[in-house]
Amino acid sequence: MHTRKVRLFVATSLDGYIAGPDHDLSFLHLVEREGEDYGYTVYADETDTVVIGRNTWEKVSSDGASSPFKEKQVYVISSSGNPESGPVVYYSGNLTQLIRALKSSAGKDIQIEGGPQMIGELLNSRLLDSICISTIPILLGSGIPLFREGLHPVKLELQQAGSFPSGLVQATYKVIY
Amino acid sequence: MHTRKVRLFVATSLDGYIAGPDHDLSFLHLVEREGEDYGYTVYADETDTVVIGRNTWEKVSSDGASSPFKEKQVYVISSSGNPESGPVVYYSGNLTQLIRALKSSAGKDIQIEGGPQMIGELLNSRLLDSICISTIPILLGSGIPLFREGLHPVKLELQQAGSFPSGLVQATYKVIY
Repeated sequence: MHTRKVRLFVATSLDGYIAGPDHDLSFLHLVEREGEDYGYTVYADETDTVVIGRNTWEKVSSDGASSPFKEKQVYVISSSGNPESGPVVYYSGNLTQLIRALKSSAGKDIQIEGGPQMIGELLNSRLLDSICISTIPILLGSGIPLFREGLHPVKLELQQAGSFPSGLVQATYKVIY
Repeated sequence: MHTRKVRLFVATSLDGYIAGPDHDLSFLHLVEREGEDYGYTVYADETDTVVIGRNTWEKVSSDGASSPFKEKQVYVISSSGNPESGPVVYYSGNLTQLIRALKSSAGKDIQIEGGPQMIGELLNSRLLDSICISTIPILLGSGIPLFREGLHPVKLELQQAGSFPSGLVQATYKVIY
């Protein structure tokens, strides 16, 4: 059986923000280039499950029901879970337990779409396997950081690094616990 | 006349810390390799002046007088300036004014050795010209961040990027004001 990996694929400013003030994502436009997805399609092809924070979900799903993740099983981490099932499940239980259950079941890799709280919990639970960061050439100065303060230190192993004509620098790390 | 550039050459963890708790720099050992200085010698050859924060100075200068920067003119930014002159000057005046004066005088580039306060002031004064960040493959979780919160947003232009067998990823940016 394929060992399912829990993978983060995310863009940040050089000062480490995944969004500016008021969840502003317009800085991502700086690196938009025709026909260049910076590896997202390959990443998405290797995952069949998405675990996403409630706030992020509300940003990417305009009506709160239809999924931009196509055929994937989506778990929306939300304090107010509901009994919905199907391709989008609201999940109000323990994140660590959900991820452990997913990893021990069969499937492709697991795509994490979340902010500092979710990433922090996954790192502290030693469940995040891989981090791919695309650094956008800007300092935002304030906003939502990717990593929250107070994490346990953790070593990384560089697996791939490169840059693009837009100025985006991408590096993929395996997390070493 | 050569236009003197104000340049930062610095290493951070992937989560953006230049030092761990208690100014711990031991994470830098992770990428120490025989004969590999990650471009520092070239950088140092292109500068003849160092502007350094008092805390950083006290870390790198064991006796507070002898300079690890060899022949370079050193300005130690310190609230308690003293009338010393020579290769090491304690400077208690306005940092922005000092940098403006240095940039309008002849010389090689200017090397910045400072923390979030100095970097923030130089960015907000539009005086920092170039940022070279070497990212060490580790998440420190807490410590001294390179960039403080609340900076004005500023765009960057990627000038060079690459990675090394140690896992260090280096990117150099021109600051676009």
